[in-house]
Amino acid sequence: MNDSRKGADPRIFEDLDPEPRLLMGPGPVDVYPRVLQAMSRTMLGQFDPQFTTYMNQVMELYRQVFRTDNHWTFLVNGTARAGIEACLTSLISPGDRVLVPIFGRFGHLLTEIAGRSGADVVTIDTEWGSVFEADQITDAVKTYSPQLVALVHGDTSTTMAQPLAEVGRFCQQAGVLVYADTTATLGGNPFETDAWGIDAASTGLQKCLSGPPGTSPVTLSEAAVERINARKHVEAGIRTVDAVDADGSIIQSNYLDLAMLMDYWSPLRLNHHTESTAMLYAARECARVVLGEGLEAGFARHRLTSRALRTGLSAMGLELFGDPAHRMENVTGVYIPDAVKDADAVRLALLDDFGIEIGTSFGPLHGKIWRIGTMGYGCRKQNVLRCLTALETVLARNGFSAPVGAAAQAAYAVYDETPA
Amino acid sequence: MNDSRKGADPRIFEDLDPEPRLLMGPGPVDVYPRVLQAMSRTMLGQFDPQFTTYMNQVMELYRQVFRTDNHWTFLVNGTARAGIEACLTSLISPGDRVLVPIFGRFGHLLTEIAGRSGADVVTIDTEWGSVFEADQITDAVKTYSPQLVALVHGDTSTTMAQPLAEVGRFCQQAGVLVYADTTATLGGNPFETDAWGIDAASTGLQKCLSGPPGTSPVTLSEAAVERINARKHVEAGIRTVDAVDADGSIIQSNYLDLAMLMDYWSPLRLNHHTESTAMLYAARECARVVLGEGLEAGFARHRLTSRALRTGLSAMGLELFGDPAHRMENVTGVYIPDAVKDADAVRLALLDDFGIEIGTSFGPLHGKIWRIGTMGYGCRKQNVLRCLTALETVLARNGFSAPVGAAAQAAYAVYDETPA
Repeated sequence: MNDSRKGADPRIFEDLDPEPRLLMGPGPVDVYPRVLQAMSRTMLGQFDPQFTTYMNQVMELYRQVFRTDNHWTFLVNGTARAGIEACLTSLISPGDRVLVPIFGRFGHLLTEIAGRSGADVVTIDTEWGSVFEADQITDAVKTYSPQLVALVHGDTSTTMAQPLAEVGRFCQQAGVLVYADTTATLGGNPFETDAWGIDAASTGLQKCLSGPPGTSPVTLSEAAVERINARKHVEAGIRTVDAVDADGSIIQSNYLDLAMLMDYWSPLRLNHHTESTAMLYAARECARVVLGEGLEAGFARHRLTSRALRTGLSAMGLELFGDPAHRMENVTGVYIPDAVKDADAVRLALLDDFGIEIGTSFGPLHGKIWRIGTMGYGCRKQNVLRCLTALETVLARNGFSAPVGAAAQAAYAVYDETPA
Repeated sequence: MNDSRKGADPRIFEDLDPEPRLLMGPGPVDVYPRVLQAMSRTMLGQFDPQFTTYMNQVMELYRQVFRTDNHWTFLVNGTARAGIEACLTSLISPGDRVLVPIFGRFGHLLTEIAGRSGADVVTIDTEWGSVFEADQITDAVKTYSPQLVALVHGDTSTTMAQPLAEVGRFCQQAGVLVYADTTATLGGNPFETDAWGIDAASTGLQKCLSGPPGTSPVTLSEAAVERINARKHVEAGIRTVDAVDADGSIIQSNYLDLAMLMDYWSPLRLNHHTESTAMLYAARECARVVLGEGLEAGFARHRLTSRALRTGLSAMGLELFGDPAHRMENVTGVYIPDAVKDADAVRLALLDDFGIEIGTSFGPLHGKIWRIGTMGYGCRKQNVLRCLTALETVLARNGFSAPVGAAAQAAYAVYDETPA
């Protein structure tokens, strides 16, 4: 029997053979080669002692990455957004008030997910390109008395990082839980789960952790675990006759139910999904890479690299976007110069002619800024120089003439003045 | 600064280096080496034309695997359970009546997910190890008039496959949507989305498709798409001022919202999650492997291999589990003989001494049967012979003496009498 369909693209049966790319957008970015190799290791069954040992190691590794003593530090099998939704939908009981300070696109996403989880969402806003003063948030906590404050640590849509230490500690004192989305920052910008009093945080592998998207590390404080376990309900099909459900409202998602996931990641190993072996291997290797370099050394590398890039862009005569005091260290927003009439033609030429991907923008910034990522494995001198020289060359063909060669020399100067 | 924590397991920094395993449980199973290699290909940005071309190819490949002309055939980024929940929570509006015929553990899972999605769930049950007659299901459809029938195609917990053709066609006539969970069957057992009138189906890579768990192919009929799009709502943060929401109730999950996922997989490429590159590469390669062999040839290989295994087990004096007329072709249930006092010791010896993993069981079958998988890449003669000889050897040390050498010779006989 012939299983092929009429009109099907014959290329579907060709080998996977993508052209090389240098990914300097807001993420995903280039994967550390060791991480790619880790994914191809021998498959293991999910209850094999070898595999459960790796699961426990992943918990320990991400405690270090998140800088926490939280026992409940584990993976949600999905992209970063799955980790966000798992935290919010497990923490939010219908009717809970949730405060979301919005300073970019991903703040809106938190309102969306919180709302779908049944929250009474209240928001405060600040202009894209700025962040909140701590007392703007703490005042809103006093005004609205939310059960949860949900915010983004670094919002790639605006390239801004919201300081969280003061807010976290205030909320801890006030008994208000805080969730932080660290997808875009963890591993490249300082983040202190315990010292800042953050109750729940989630991330993805595909930014500063140099991995592929597909699994989401999360960490939960004791207070967060208590709130989630008050809603614990063991699913039909594996519940024993003596199972007792908690009093709280049932978590609306089964797949993203953190109470069940904790049972799966506990010595009970209560069956839930089938842990994604390849992605767990990737997550383990990402953490080894980041911790092997040392978190502080990695932060310093991200700071230096973004400074070199920004100095080069400025030397080219381009204007940087956003509040300089609160930029993320791994992504840079730069205004598209007026002289450039077709911004997408510039991005396309970078991609087609130089193999370099940079990012476009969302919402109010669409068509106004490009976003250039320097994170994880790709956060290095050669990529800064490659990007600056390529951009200068392409801009010259698209209406904007920068001082020839100035950008790369300015970036070099940053490295020359910085002790190795 | 030293980032390591006191008391951390020093092995967390060791290379990933698992001992080899032959996975002959109910899944996950051994991954086809080409699939492991595909995952380590160059990372691409999600809107890179190279990548969107691969996304479109994946849609076409899975149309062939699912045997459908459904345009909307794509991936949900999570394990098989994510695909199940995405289908159910996107199809079920709160208050909808959903009929779930339960013949094993995963039928219970469907009731759980449907219930959390707000369904009025009605169930019919049959003993574990049997399946339903078609008219038991169609009579229940007449009695309860559900908006959706949700059932499992093959339930690995019982090793039974439910015939779906008659039920699907009846429901299509009656205007009742049918969802089928094909996680455990697709690629190893005949499944006909269009010919059987199935409106929504989802699967995983980790069974007959020879891939790792972590992404879930789904397919949706026009009727299913219509029901889902009646609930379409574009999320805050990317909605334009002229966005108009559909009238239906909002889908409670953002991550698993198939209406949004269709926009992401359409030429609109409306940003949602960040597609898991590595898992998409894996999914593409899995489909190439399965279609390269040919679906019918693959089904025949699964039939022959499970027949050889079952003949061998019977020759050993073991009793097979479940209705012989409705067994899945990729997993075999076998009663644990009374003479074996410690069933887990047998599984452990197979794992430790032979590197072979076989499965235990859930619920009413726990402690009564083992489950042995012959699927995907692992579905081959050498594994049947290796498993039978190992099991005979281990059983002899655990209280049960089979006729020496009979199992392997009986399996050989099946191959000898079968024309190549």
